[in-house]
Amino acid sequence: MVTLKAARLIREAPVVAYPALAGAESFARAIAAGLIAPGAREIVIEVPMTQARGPAQAAYEEGAARIAEVLQRGQDVVCLCEGDPFFYGSFMYLHARLAGRFAVEVVPGVSSLTACAARAGQPLAARNERVTVLPGPLPEAELTRRIEGAETVAILKVGRHLPKLRSVIGRLGLMDRAVYVERATLGDERVCGLAEAPDAAPYFSMILVAKGADPWL
Amino acid sequence: MVTLKAARLIREAPVVAYPALAGAESFARAIAAGLIAPGAREIVIEVPMTQARGPAQAAYEEGAARIAEVLQRGQDVVCLCEGDPFFYGSFMYLHARLAGRFAVEVVPGVSSLTACAARAGQPLAARNERVTVLPGPLPEAELTRRIEGAETVAILKVGRHLPKLRSVIGRLGLMDRAVYVERATLGDERVCGLAEAPDAAPYFSMILVAKGADPWL
Repeated sequence: MVTLKAARLIREAPVVAYPALAGAESFARAIAAGLIAPGAREIVIEVPMTQARGPAQAAYEEGAARIAEVLQRGQDVVCLCEGDPFFYGSFMYLHARLAGRFAVEVVPGVSSLTACAARAGQPLAARNERVTVLPGPLPEAELTRRIEGAETVAILKVGRHLPKLRSVIGRLGLMDRAVYVERATLGDERVCGLAEAPDAAPYFSMILVAKGADPWL
Repeated sequence: MVTLKAARLIREAPVVAYPALAGAESFARAIAAGLIAPGAREIVIEVPMTQARGPAQAAYEEGAARIAEVLQRGQDVVCLCEGDPFFYGSFMYLHARLAGRFAVEVVPGVSSLTACAARAGQPLAARNERVTVLPGPLPEAELTRRIEGAETVAILKVGRHLPKLRSVIGRLGLMDRAVYVERATLGDERVCGLAEAPDAAPYFSMILVAKGADPWL
């Protein structure tokens, strides 16, 4: 799902930067692996897995400084990011630290929102319909209120919040309109009704609730 | 902003179908022009420009029938769509008519939502922030209420609704957080503060209102 433009930029990049969860292989790099030039220098930003924001932000601070060093020497850096950089993407933490001082071009990507809808065969919105994107970690009462007032709803970052989300959606009588999508477009993708979804969902999972979007009308 | 996967499918397609506003060149075809094989057959779905839904739906009905004819002969058809097919995309009208009878694969695309955010240099959401997508033609009172309760807001289909949208956003005290993006990623793109936006906006324009998404934290 890489765009032609992104593929070209990656192929031509003298330096490539990307985040990696500390101790693990970088998912962003794995997706782009076949495109990175053999001689390219790689800047790995090791992001610690903590609930507190501080350590992760320190990692982005340090990563931005390493990128800035290269840019100051007049070389371009291509930063990799899963999905879209500005839709819950890690790149925005680098963007905030670099955009004021250097020329930064953001290349939009295919977001998990449309990737999941495509794989579920579930249109998001047509005509004057609204779309609401909610992160799964929000409190139960807030989720209930926001889903009630919405048309199409996409719930991201489902993970361990799945049982809570299923109970909210069930109580709103929307169970038969809720689709669960896990690791959309990847090899081990899974699409099923929310009722059949596993209690322990991975981070890369989404629930789509379609209350509007009748494409026949 | 075509993905590698979409580019490959278009190049290999024996038959390509796309909508065109009656009497005008097809925008979707213009974007993909360099990828369509010289010998490919083209199915043009002429969509009339009317407020009433009937004539447009009749055009999709007839277009779906012509596509079905090709599919029944065992040939593949690649349908072109601007942006993402399921995010206010015209393809969903064909999908509703074909998906039950034929194998349909939807290839997600870069939506206007992330394209506009990227071009505006404006992150949409991070962490547990919400994103609300609202079509500009909605009534003023509804827009006011929904923008008030939202974090990041993206308003699509701005067009002739721009003065109404500007007054709603102004009254909510959000003028300095509202960016106007016209024809994102195209040659004649325009990005400016909402206050400086033209009263007569084109259909392909968007307003982004950032109330959340502090990428430093």
